[in-house]
Amino acid sequence: MLEHRYAVIMAGGGGTRLWPVSRKERPKQLIPLLGEETLFQSTVKRLQGLFPLERIFVVTVEDQAREMMQQQPEIPAANYILEPAPRGTASVVGLAAMALHQQDPQASIAVLSSDHFIRNVDLFHYLLRASFDVAEDGYLVVLGITPTNPSTAYGYIQQGQPLVGDYKYPAYQVKSFKEKPNEQTAQQLLRSGDHSWNGGMFIWRADAILGEIRKQMPNLHSALETIRGAWGTSRQEQVLKDTWLKLDTVTVDYGIMEKADCAAVLPAGGLGWSDVGMWSSLFEVLLPDMNGNIATNMNLHLSHETHNTMIYGGGSERLIVTIGVDDTVIVDTPDILLVCKTDQSQKVRDIVEHLKKHGQEKFL
Amino acid sequence: MLEHRYAVIMAGGGGTRLWPVSRKERPKQLIPLLGEETLFQSTVKRLQGLFPLERIFVVTVEDQAREMMQQQPEIPAANYILEPAPRGTASVVGLAAMALHQQDPQASIAVLSSDHFIRNVDLFHYLLRASFDVAEDGYLVVLGITPTNPSTAYGYIQQGQPLVGDYKYPAYQVKSFKEKPNEQTAQQLLRSGDHSWNGGMFIWRADAILGEIRKQMPNLHSALETIRGAWGTSRQEQVLKDTWLKLDTVTVDYGIMEKADCAAVLPAGGLGWSDVGMWSSLFEVLLPDMNGNIATNMNLHLSHETHNTMIYGGGSERLIVTIGVDDTVIVDTPDILLVCKTDQSQKVRDIVEHLKKHGQEKFL
Repeated sequence: MLEHRYAVIMAGGGGTRLWPVSRKERPKQLIPLLGEETLFQSTVKRLQGLFPLERIFVVTVEDQAREMMQQQPEIPAANYILEPAPRGTASVVGLAAMALHQQDPQASIAVLSSDHFIRNVDLFHYLLRASFDVAEDGYLVVLGITPTNPSTAYGYIQQGQPLVGDYKYPAYQVKSFKEKPNEQTAQQLLRSGDHSWNGGMFIWRADAILGEIRKQMPNLHSALETIRGAWGTSRQEQVLKDTWLKLDTVTVDYGIMEKADCAAVLPAGGLGWSDVGMWSSLFEVLLPDMNGNIATNMNLHLSHETHNTMIYGGGSERLIVTIGVDDTVIVDTPDILLVCKTDQSQKVRDIVEHLKKHGQEKFL
Repeated sequence: MLEHRYAVIMAGGGGTRLWPVSRKERPKQLIPLLGEETLFQSTVKRLQGLFPLERIFVVTVEDQAREMMQQQPEIPAANYILEPAPRGTASVVGLAAMALHQQDPQASIAVLSSDHFIRNVDLFHYLLRASFDVAEDGYLVVLGITPTNPSTAYGYIQQGQPLVGDYKYPAYQVKSFKEKPNEQTAQQLLRSGDHSWNGGMFIWRADAILGEIRKQMPNLHSALETIRGAWGTSRQEQVLKDTWLKLDTVTVDYGIMEKADCAAVLPAGGLGWSDVGMWSSLFEVLLPDMNGNIATNMNLHLSHETHNTMIYGGGSERLIVTIGVDDTVIVDTPDILLVCKTDQSQKVRDIVEHLKKHGQEKFL
């Protein structure tokens, strides 16, 4: 079965919460946010040993594909599947499943994000292999990230009965998917012990997910069949475009998983996973010093009485000095300086909205 | 008597507490810190209506004199008196008194700093005139700034009995000069009601201060007499240099005023005075907005939940965003970024010391 296992990396979004480093022209996954490599490059590297490069596919938009091909030329160009326009993750996983099923009817797929961080790659490999074992029995598997705090930034997955089967790692039926909770509910979910975060990592057989789409999203399914009819022909691009633009924008969670009978969850603790969703999440990803500080991508930081503060430099020769600063994120790019209390870093998005509304294009 | 009144502006120091805007090559008084004008230009402008330009003198070091002459070409070049090297304010006021006494034996002098801020210029003029009236009776007058907080950054002056005389404004004997107090003592001095800040503004007759120097600092006095002998001759520069370098470095407060019998103080409240001594003092000088924020010398500031925070831009097109930031000073220059809790802004000096010690010349 191993030769039928594929990875599909989804790389569509912009991500405004890591502004001003993540910008309209340089989305989060395409910048070397955490060091030398871009998040996209790290995502591909993380798959080494699990998938040969020719079985790694990328679904993205045209603008980003060019840059991705430059960053990762070892992936065959034919493995980049271009979305004509963003139409939600349900459409993306459907398109990928159709394309892979067309080329390999026995294909099973791990759907992954291009812009996440995972510290413990060995464990990630182990869990993906275990997930494929379950998925190959027909389940739609989602990795359930063991929560480490009552986050309101993720959807939650409640696990039900253990699956019956000869699996090397425990897997459970999904009892329910829950949308991003409020603070109080998040506390309850954390205490419950049977809820995990939905990190958007799915493993399934191509035919299983296509069957579920047929049941739950017949319009999408018939669109995919139309596209399949032209796939690999000279009409592929035109048919894809025409069909795609008529699709509704729906997430895979809402459109497919929530109502699927055969959804399964594998508890994934200890991965050191982060969606690097906002500046505060870099404290989980980069290792703070004794004072809880992180200084990265910069020349020289001098500090006095500074704690739990992240300085993200613009890669320049600038000297950055902090005195008496606590619990703060400082992001210093060539044209924008952001100083933000760490626990308010989700508000960065509001600033981007404000700039958009006021036509400050050059700062987007 | 009015035609015998002179201003002497002292402009020697570097001032490291307004780093990184104030730099070794661009000391505080020579930069447009508060707007279009430099502090030195504002100091001269503030004297308009009190002194004609030919009776405004400047004592400074050679490096700074060139720049000052460019900034204030209306002051006759001969009015710039060059210190061969810094030897403390006692030496400076002695040199100025000697030079002015030599050219006008009836001279009386207001000694002022080149880098202070005064909001209420009319009141300043009124108080200087009143001070000259007292000084011309032989007193060594110091303006006593009415304290508005228990500052530990200034020396204090305790007032004694009212002077007897037909003065238009109350003047008092000086009971004592007190060095910069600790926090607790500062609280007591503030409550006492008879203490004021020593802002370093002195008014006296040239012959009176020279007489006091003869009594208390005979070495300085004889040095000044030596210099006087060569003053206005071809030997002036050489004799000044030779004599000067042998002087001890002593402040006028410690060397002269503390033991002077004829010291007098005029209470100066409501001047809106600031020595602009560190970043936090700019909150007294520039007018904060409704949220207590100041954004100056910059292009665009966007803020969310930001209070009592000063953003001092580098005059660039950069966008500066603050989210959840309180009681903070942010100084953004082309090569250095400073983020500092306002109440710790005196620590900036320690950072400069650190850079000096570690040979980081380019950041000084």
